[in-house]
Amino acid sequence: MNLMLASTSTVHGSPYLSYLSAEWIKHFSGRLVVFVPYARPMGMNWDAYTQIPKSVMAAAGIELRGVQEFASPAEAARQAEGWFVGGGNTFVLRRSLRETGLEPLLDESVRNGTPYMGSSAGINIAGPSIETTNDMPIVEVPTLQAMAWLPFNLNPHYLDPQPGGSHMGETREQRIAEFHAYHSQPVVGLREGSWLTSNGSEHQVCGPHSARIFSPGQAAVECPPGPLRF
Amino acid sequence: MNLMLASTSTVHGSPYLSYLSAEWIKHFSGRLVVFVPYARPMGMNWDAYTQIPKSVMAAAGIELRGVQEFASPAEAARQAEGWFVGGGNTFVLRRSLRETGLEPLLDESVRNGTPYMGSSAGINIAGPSIETTNDMPIVEVPTLQAMAWLPFNLNPHYLDPQPGGSHMGETREQRIAEFHAYHSQPVVGLREGSWLTSNGSEHQVCGPHSARIFSPGQAAVECPPGPLRF
Repeated sequence: MNLMLASTSTVHGSPYLSYLSAEWIKHFSGRLVVFVPYARPMGMNWDAYTQIPKSVMAAAGIELRGVQEFASPAEAARQAEGWFVGGGNTFVLRRSLRETGLEPLLDESVRNGTPYMGSSAGINIAGPSIETTNDMPIVEVPTLQAMAWLPFNLNPHYLDPQPGGSHMGETREQRIAEFHAYHSQPVVGLREGSWLTSNGSEHQVCGPHSARIFSPGQAAVECPPGPLRF
Repeated sequence: MNLMLASTSTVHGSPYLSYLSAEWIKHFSGRLVVFVPYARPMGMNWDAYTQIPKSVMAAAGIELRGVQEFASPAEAARQAEGWFVGGGNTFVLRRSLRETGLEPLLDESVRNGTPYMGSSAGINIAGPSIETTNDMPIVEVPTLQAMAWLPFNLNPHYLDPQPGGSHMGETREQRIAEFHAYHSQPVVGLREGSWLTSNGSEHQVCGPHSARIFSPGQAAVECPPGPLRF
């Protein structure tokens, strides 16, 4: 597998996908990229959402087409030389992957080595389950289980606790600890501006920040940029 | 129905349930209250969680017993003269209500007028669905549909957008707008320190804050303490 998994599409104050453009240009150069707009940020429709990465990648000489622009998901998967699954709502994404029939086609293509990029919701599906998403469960999903390309769950947009906050809600770290009351796989918290690369068995933390690693029954640890270690 | 639905159990800087003790003392006075600890905050076990409201209510002369302290959920429902469903994780609560068989018993009892109090996760279940919870989906649930005692969804711990924040995540208001891309029922955002009372058809906003009302296709509006108006 050839995975590039970004916490976010957009870092505060910079244009869409610009903070890691050198990386996705390498990842996708000369390839037809199929975009999966199913996560529908702000409820945006598939075509409107597709225009955003399409114009950004076109400016870098990379052709991107939405999966809905092909005759069928099967035809999109046949032609795909790269995949980009954008952010939005993970539940909406999960449901549409199942309903459209794209799920097994995407899975097979990615497991065969077609370069994959995901951001936000598009990386929640890469682990064993979407149970560590931050998203609101605005639609029913057939299951919370996901693609399991990685042996650990991801938590994108990882936020450190804010000292002195008066809000009584759980911190992200507390939520992940609750997840570990029921599950044993590690969770990798990726701060905004971070991404992972992976071939499925070796994983690299990339970008300016360390990742935060949560394992059941252990204190969380920081993993600096470089090989991912638990 | 006789519902008292609190955004939170604990307001910053004050003890558990103390900010609305006058209200629950009135609600439960002279009654045996059955506590439902299924939401397991921080993964806490049922008995440990039950001790918290038990000691607080005992100090006010109200007897509270955990549903697990009875021979069966059916026996708990037979004896219940009041219900308190505490906060924690809404998905964990949803799943256990189904698995233990308590769900239809609780529903019948509450619809027959037994006083109900919920906080946080314990109010998410009062609307048509739990799809506007803030909680992480850490376990599979049989369905996101809920008790539908109210004709609208609730969003507890409602947080206003923080001006100047650099985090690119959605605001709570944006998340609820995404919910409305798929659903038509209104959503009532309850700030910490607020609660609703309801007989099922008339609803009152209580506490120091206004509630924020979200309806599909309309700008959100504030509803001051008093009768809930859409």
